Amino acid sequence: MLDKARVSGVAFRPHVKTHKTVEIARLQHGGALGPITVSTLAEAEFFADAGFKDITYAVPITPEKLDRAAALARKIDTFNLLIDSEGALQALESHWHPFDVFLKVDCGYHRAGVDPDSPDSVRLVLAIARSPAVRFNGLLTHAGHSYNARTIDEIRRVAMEETACLTRFRERLGGLKPAATRSVGSTPTMSVVDRFEDVDEVRPGNYVFYDAFQATIGSCTRADCAVSVLATVIGSYPDRDEAIIDAGALALSKDLGPNHIDTKFGYGIVCDLNSRPLPMRLVSLSQEHGKIEAASPPPIGTQLRIIPNHSCLTSAMYDVYHVIDDGNVVEEWRPCRGW
Amino acid sequence: MLDKARVSGVAFRPHVKTHKTVEIARLQHGGALGPITVSTLAEAEFFADAGFKDITYAVPITPEKLDRAAALARKIDTFNLLIDSEGALQALESHWHPFDVFLKVDCGYHRAGVDPDSPDSVRLVLAIARSPAVRFNGLLTHAGHSYNARTIDEIRRVAMEETACLTRFRERLGGLKPAATRSVGSTPTMSVVDRFEDVDEVRPGNYVFYDAFQATIGSCTRADCAVSVLATVIGSYPDRDEAIIDAGALALSKDLGPNHIDTKFGYGIVCDLNSRPLPMRLVSLSQEHGKIEAASPPPIGTQLRIIPNHSCLTSAMYDVYHVIDDGNVVEEWRPCRGW
Repeated sequence: MLDKARVSGVAFRPHVKTHKTVEIARLQHGGALGPITVSTLAEAEFFADAGFKDITYAVPITPEKLDRAAALARKIDTFNLLIDSEGALQALESHWHPFDVFLKVDCGYHRAGVDPDSPDSVRLVLAIARSPAVRFNGLLTHAGHSYNARTIDEIRRVAMEETACLTRFRERLGGLKPAATRSVGSTPTMSVVDRFEDVDEVRPGNYVFYDAFQATIGSCTRADCAVSVLATVIGSYPDRDEAIIDAGALALSKDLGPNHIDTKFGYGIVCDLNSRPLPMRLVSLSQEHGKIEAASPPPIGTQLRIIPNHSCLTSAMYDVYHVIDDGNVVEEWRPCRGW
Repeated sequence: MLDKARVSGVAFRPHVKTHKTVEIARLQHGGALGPITVSTLAEAEFFADAGFKDITYAVPITPEKLDRAAALARKIDTFNLLIDSEGALQALESHWHPFDVFLKVDCGYHRAGVDPDSPDSVRLVLAIARSPAVRFNGLLTHAGHSYNARTIDEIRRVAMEETACLTRFRERLGGLKPAATRSVGSTPTMSVVDRFEDVDEVRPGNYVFYDAFQATIGSCTRADCAVSVLATVIGSYPDRDEAIIDAGALALSKDLGPNHIDTKFGYGIVCDLNSRPLPMRLVSLSQEHGKIEAASPPPIGTQLRIIPNHSCLTSAMYDVYHVIDDGNVVEEWRPCRGW
């Protein structure tokens, strides 16, 4: 992903929320402490403490978080905040700190962001850009609706919308100087394009691990999935073609994965210790139990690897990653937690 | 629940997996360090370190966990393990430590446990009871299928099955002495009965907090729900009747709650700061965003309380509980984590 950004001549600001570790954030930048994107203030503080100097907090900010954000902003070179309303701008302007700001734009996901086709949105950009109290750094969007795709072609269509939306919006800003940075990012869209075009900055995150969901919609292959949960069979019931493992909702998360494509997908891909998929379905999760359906349920004590449906949510359940090389644990990496 | 157990003359061994704190485990026993049930070895070690001397690990054990279990068992008075197969019994017998054992019985949930009506199950009990290498302490079941209920009457029927199953099974053991302890526990069944009958020990857990799910199936009222997540509105979109809060999948868990009763229940009950429900639905969660549908979406900065669908899973996402009395944070309680 870093290479693709370099070849495309765009800035690379990977999201670190998927893994939340200093080690992987450095890997994302080929060893450097490059620009990153975070999803919580706790992450921002954790990575700033580790030496990262250029951070975008890609969740809209609210007034009660501004003091904490300002304290962090003073410690590093750039701490970009995200807003999508006149009210949020006023809150920033009322604060003593001159915040760096991106405007969140809705490119079709309809979670957060302003409508790029509304005159109000143009007025809001111009108000931010002209405000003496904040620094306007650009337009940011996230094509979360790429996760609704079923095929690579569908993802490609969303990728076009994602970039076209910001370019079209920027054109409507007239002669605003300097031209607003166009920042985009979603792992499906960033994965399927050969080159990043019509954009200034990219922010993919999940691609560092990928997962069962991404492999199913076509962002990656199953062999690209780089994180799994080691589980042990704690009950085996050949009479009913079932087994129980010691990985439940707290070990995996209850994300339903690509159930828009396969309603019986289950809670992850059940694999052997070499991450080869087995003919088994992980059909239900309670707090510390996972139930597997299998024609030949494995005996008690069998170890399995579960490729998670959503690696971001699963990874957040753990205090440590065991880094495996050639079957051996070679390092332990500790993620940031909390908010 | 403690009072009901006392009045009923049955042993009380509450599950602590819902909260994982020493403070609440003591509250469950009226201040004492009484018998408890845990769902992980990490919990067993955490509570043993805090002085709890009688612990049941209510998830079937596997061979690779036995050394760790034995180390713990030597530190406290009683550490009960759970098994449901001949293979697991052999693993315990091969270990140097004389483990305390309960046999897990399937009373209809069909997750783990032996079939109480199978001759093999009787043979397994007798093999455990006669083994010189382990101590047989009784029969344990969990009526997890009470969670499929839609009404109090349905829960009551499951409660009858839960206790009757163990009593019937025990009768089939002939003159086994001492008579096996019958241990049952699920919050719905324990909540709806007036008295614990036909049983020797009860192990409810979720009742300490309850949650949106339990209130919907009839285990409790909504006012009984004792834990909530404080969230802030970070985006407000009156044009599309939506708002975004800063509590997503990592703050709440993606448990679907009582969607067998209401497929549009959403990811928790949206309340004001006094825990009064508001006419809003929490319709989707991404990692750090929750999307609310509301005819009048609240403005940015509004604080809301979300009563979680499944308090066990939501609580496990936090490093600290803020204990509120009369609107003020009066204590901070820190749960155990991990496995």
